[in-house]
Parts: sequence; structure tokens; C-alpha cells
Amino acid sequence: MKLKLIVALALGAATTAAVAGEVEDQIRFRQSAYSFLGWNTAKIKAQAADHPETFNKDQVIAAANAVAAVANSGLLSLYGPGTDKGTGWKATRLKPEFFEKQDEVKEIEATFIKEANELQKVAANGDAAEVKAQFGKVGATCKSCHDLIRVRE
Amino acid sequence: MKLKLIVALALGAATTAAVAGEVEDQIRFRQSAYSFLGWNTAKIKAQAADHPETFNKDQVIAAANAVAAVANSGLLSLYGPGTDKGTGWKATRLKPEFFEKQDEVKEIEATFIKEANELQKVAANGDAAEVKAQFGKVGATCKSCHDLIRVRE
Repeated sequence: MKLKLIVALALGAATTAAVAGEVEDQIRFRQSAYSFLGWNTAKIKAQAADHPETFNKDQVIAAANAVAAVANSGLLSLYGPGTDKGTGWKATRLKPEFFEKQDEVKEIEATFIKEANELQKVAANGDAAEVKAQFGKVGATCKSCHDLIRVRE
Repeated sequence: MKLKLIVALALGAATTAAVAGEVEDQIRFRQSAYSFLGWNTAKIKAQAADHPETFNKDQVIAAANAVAAVANSGLLSLYGPGTDKGTGWKATRLKPEFFEKQDEVKEIEATFIKEANELQKVAANGDAAEVKAQFGKVGATCKSCHDLIRVRE
């Protein structure tokens, strides 16, 4: 029983490593996640904020589901040691300070998840003004993380 | 009223274009979506198929939600004219035949959405064997599309 547990834990660690992958893989996966996120937030911004006359409830729901899925996907597992240097699709913009600011980072992640889950709920109601307001809260969590640990371009 | 409608339609078209973007943007967004998808399918494969002793219900639910979110995100809007050539994060592998095989492509997309939505439901039950079986069906839809319109590496 004890051996089985140790094997399971060892395989669990191996699996996590395999899934999280090498430094370059982690950077590429997180860049992909944020790019997929950006495509979907652009759709919400266009339809709920910039051009509300084009609001399409089903498209906004799908985009909000995508935002929530990214938020809940365990992104922090893609920020392993050494991933403040290296190239995924492009060179990472992660500041080395990331590793010293774990309390703030985890707090921001929790807020991002909370606000993204709320956006998913609000989107289901189909009210453009409500979506716009909640979308602003999600955007604020994005910005707070960028300000904290992302190199400015 | 008629003018308002025309303006709305024009803005709608402009918005769609802005969101879908230039050829390179479309290719980069779809490569990001598939890479985010691949990261999440790898988690499900590891936990439900390769190492079921590491099965973590919450992580599999989150990954299945991500797979469903990608499937329902309107990926075909990222396959505009000319996107069989060009470079997003890397050169596209889309075959030019894509544009002549729209009936098959749309049928595959519908099956992908159906099977991914089912995976999301099955994951919520938390049974590794059921997840593995349904994951196989999702994987088959991925492969059918790759075989049809993606250049082999």
C-alpha cells in the first residue's frame, strides 16, 4: 500500500513534469494560452464595449467560456524555475521578480479566476452593459499582473 | 432605421475583420488555440489514459472545460482567404485544399464540438475510464481534420 502510494506520487510528479515540460515548452504554452485569451477578450471588447450594436449573445458566451477556461487552467504550473529566461514562440517577458512575488501573484490569480467565473455567469444573461462592466473587472486583473511581473514592450 | 441597420452591419463586418485580423494574426491565433488545446489534452491523456493512478478530478474537469471552450470558440473564423500561406508563430501547415473541402471541414467541426461538449459532461462525473473512452472520440475528430487538411511534418 505504501509502495503503491510512493509509485503513484512518483508518477504524479513525472506526469506533472511531462505536462509542464521543459522551460521552452512552458513558455510556449503560456504564450499560447494568453494569445487565445487575447483573441477571445478582443471579441468581448468589440461586441460589449466598442460596438454594442453588434452584440451577439452566443458569441459572447463562447468567448466568456474561453476566458474562464484559461483562468481556471492552472497557468501557474507553466511558470517553473528558469522560465524567466528563454524563448517559447518568442522571448519571454517574465521579470525575474516573479519568483519573489509569489504571494501577490497567487492573489492576482485568485482574483482573475473569480472575476472570469463571474464574467461567464454574466455573459449567460446576455446583457451587453453588464458584460461590459464585468469585463472591465477582468481586464483590471490582467493589468495588475502585467504591471507586477511583465517587462514592458 | 434602414441607415441604422446598414451602419450596424458595416460595423459588424468591420468588427469581425478586426477580430479575425490579418492573415498572420489569424494563423497565430489558431496556432495558439491548438497549442492551448494540446496542453490541456496532454493533461487528460496523462491522467485518464497513461497514468490513471494520478487522476485528479478537478484538474481533468478544468482541462475538459478548456477543450470544450476551444472547440466552441469559432475557430473557422480564423481560416480566412489566403491563410493557407503565411506565418503566425510559425509557417502554417494548412493545405490549400481546405477551401475546397468546406462541407467536410464543417462536418468535422460539428463533430468536434459535439464530442468535446460530451467530454466536458463526462469529466464532471469523475470516472477515469469514462473520460478515457470519450477522450478517444475527441482525439479521433482531431485526427480526421489533420488527415484532411494539414500538411504532414
